[in-house]
Amino acid sequence: MKIGSFHPPQRTLMGPGPSDVSPRVLEAMSRPTLGHLDPVFVAMMDEVKALLKYAFQTGNELTMPVSAPGSAGMETCFVNLVEPGDKVIICQNGVFGGRMKENVERCGGIAVMVQDEWGRAVDPQKLEDALKANRDAKIVAFVHAETSTGAVSDAKTLAEIAHRYDCLVIADAVTSLAGSPLKVGEWKIDAIYSGTQKCLSCTPGLSPVSFSDAAVERIKSRKSKVQSWFLDLNLVMGYWGGNAKRAYHHTAPINALYGLHEALVILQDEGLENAWARHRKHHLALRSGIEAMGLAFVVPEAERLPQLNAIAIPEGVDDAAVRSMLLSDWQLEIGAGLGAMAGKVWRIGLMGHACNPRNVLLCLSALEDVLVRLKAPVKRGEALAAATGSLMA
Amino acid sequence: MKIGSFHPPQRTLMGPGPSDVSPRVLEAMSRPTLGHLDPVFVAMMDEVKALLKYAFQTGNELTMPVSAPGSAGMETCFVNLVEPGDKVIICQNGVFGGRMKENVERCGGIAVMVQDEWGRAVDPQKLEDALKANRDAKIVAFVHAETSTGAVSDAKTLAEIAHRYDCLVIADAVTSLAGSPLKVGEWKIDAIYSGTQKCLSCTPGLSPVSFSDAAVERIKSRKSKVQSWFLDLNLVMGYWGGNAKRAYHHTAPINALYGLHEALVILQDEGLENAWARHRKHHLALRSGIEAMGLAFVVPEAERLPQLNAIAIPEGVDDAAVRSMLLSDWQLEIGAGLGAMAGKVWRIGLMGHACNPRNVLLCLSALEDVLVRLKAPVKRGEALAAATGSLMA
Repeated sequence: MKIGSFHPPQRTLMGPGPSDVSPRVLEAMSRPTLGHLDPVFVAMMDEVKALLKYAFQTGNELTMPVSAPGSAGMETCFVNLVEPGDKVIICQNGVFGGRMKENVERCGGIAVMVQDEWGRAVDPQKLEDALKANRDAKIVAFVHAETSTGAVSDAKTLAEIAHRYDCLVIADAVTSLAGSPLKVGEWKIDAIYSGTQKCLSCTPGLSPVSFSDAAVERIKSRKSKVQSWFLDLNLVMGYWGGNAKRAYHHTAPINALYGLHEALVILQDEGLENAWARHRKHHLALRSGIEAMGLAFVVPEAERLPQLNAIAIPEGVDDAAVRSMLLSDWQLEIGAGLGAMAGKVWRIGLMGHACNPRNVLLCLSALEDVLVRLKAPVKRGEALAAATGSLMA
Repeated sequence: MKIGSFHPPQRTLMGPGPSDVSPRVLEAMSRPTLGHLDPVFVAMMDEVKALLKYAFQTGNELTMPVSAPGSAGMETCFVNLVEPGDKVIICQNGVFGGRMKENVERCGGIAVMVQDEWGRAVDPQKLEDALKANRDAKIVAFVHAETSTGAVSDAKTLAEIAHRYDCLVIADAVTSLAGSPLKVGEWKIDAIYSGTQKCLSCTPGLSPVSFSDAAVERIKSRKSKVQSWFLDLNLVMGYWGGNAKRAYHHTAPINALYGLHEALVILQDEGLENAWARHRKHHLALRSGIEAMGLAFVVPEAERLPQLNAIAIPEGVDDAAVRSMLLSDWQLEIGAGLGAMAGKVWRIGLMGHACNPRNVLLCLSALEDVLVRLKAPVKRGEALAAATGSLMA
């Protein structure tokens, strides 16, 4: 049987990512493919690095996109920095801290877990206690913005504590980059990874990373080889490094990088602080509407990410039915809960290009419509006015 | 300083890949992004799997694209199949056999190298001798189509020998897939990886792979965890597997997969045998022209790949100057030699969408022009007629 071309419907993506992609990014990806060693392409790579330094707010020379999704960015940090026997303290307050543990153990490292409640920020005191009890720890890892819960942690304080105990710091910024304040240089984060499909409004498939000089020093002086050939930064640096002469390592995903370049130009033109403010403004409008409907947030206000809103599913409401009706009747995707949060929360993303007044109103209207049809206990007719009031305040 | 949007020039890509991408593929990639768990997207994933089975000529259930370039596809095969202490026989006849060795050793395996001359096919007798001398070997790995030299090896015979000694077979089909005969099922290859940016005429960034039931059995019964979390097929199968319910593993590169889907539809519509014949036809035309110019092929005729033509650089000709003039004056990219072949050969690709009469004529005209201007010893005015004669024969 012959298979025909694929023509996807036009959804509105307000889950935990991928989020709506800017049409400018989609168009950029369809430009003519160049060779991965073409001088014109190499010059574009340098621009991507410069733009990523701006997005991360860092001067780190080793700032580049890994040629694979965020999970591979996470793995890049761990396989390059962890050697067999190394002790790594991991602060876990959601799904992705657990994935860090998997990474450490697969590198032959020893993971010491510091657990916090899901939906809450990481407690700096618990980290300090763990460091006191594990003086031989070499690395501290935590998730800056937990995609599974929508909680933001105080990365600056956590990094400061880690450095006091001579540890390098690995942070997950998959959801925070370009959506809420993140200052890699000022906060002294040694290794950080993100994704392109969230607040950068790019398609999924690349993982921006950045490494401090101390991290690069650690990588260069490893006793053992990095276990992944594909992710070995000693080799990748030969291609993405500062030299005019680039050594072939792997074939870069050329057109995906065009998309990332365009997404970063859009961010540069808007200005990072303006992007953060825009995410906050629309989050507040969504919040007004959600609360006017009688629904509640999971994360305490001070620890909430504006770009990822975890909403408690009201008692007796069929999670899957709601999401399925939103998708089929409204072409709207919101996210399910992940791990321990499955069935208990919805995750509503307001990320990058998707973070705009139209989407706030669409989401509130659609959610109210579906919940009312399912006879869920929500207040009718209040949400839009509340959101509009907030937007116009 | 503000950085503007990137607008690449329109090149003709006749190197070892990326090759020219079909406009249909570029357009497909710019279609609206879907969520990676959207039922419409999941249905498309099933089509990609079915189309890849056709391209690989296999019924293997575990046939899918890895969410990263060909190098990651290679690593997927090795990290999943090799356990610490496992002995792997690697037949090396070019650069990529050496990369296999790196992979085996980083997995804690023992690589036994069987060396053949670069530019020649792998010698089956040498493999058999190595297997006799290493009865404890568990895997045989070889490159079907060496991208660094343009030589094709007899994969069917090599696999047959390997199986006689109870070894699983890993093959590199990065350059062969869709360009010259490859029959994964009939030839009983247990694990194979390829790339999207060569004869599939898709952008770089994905790596189609396929695993036999025996390979899947080996993966499921491993004693140790796969060292890569991102590439662990035990986890990836939960997302790409046969169940209607797909478990989140990593965020798939949605739009890149639209491109691959379209490239595979194009291949299906042309027919695999027709695609192989088209590559052979244009290779013969290019060969006629190249030889009429007085240039010579590196690989003996019987071992030559049609889609990748390694041409000896005439004595005294400045390799880099030629490639640079082709790029600047003709917007034509051809490939340099790699590894031991650097400075000694040019690699001219005739891959997928780029494998057409127009490109054969362009390449011959441009090469002759540049070589004549550089006063290289080539015959003038013969190549185009020879190629045209071959095309019209």
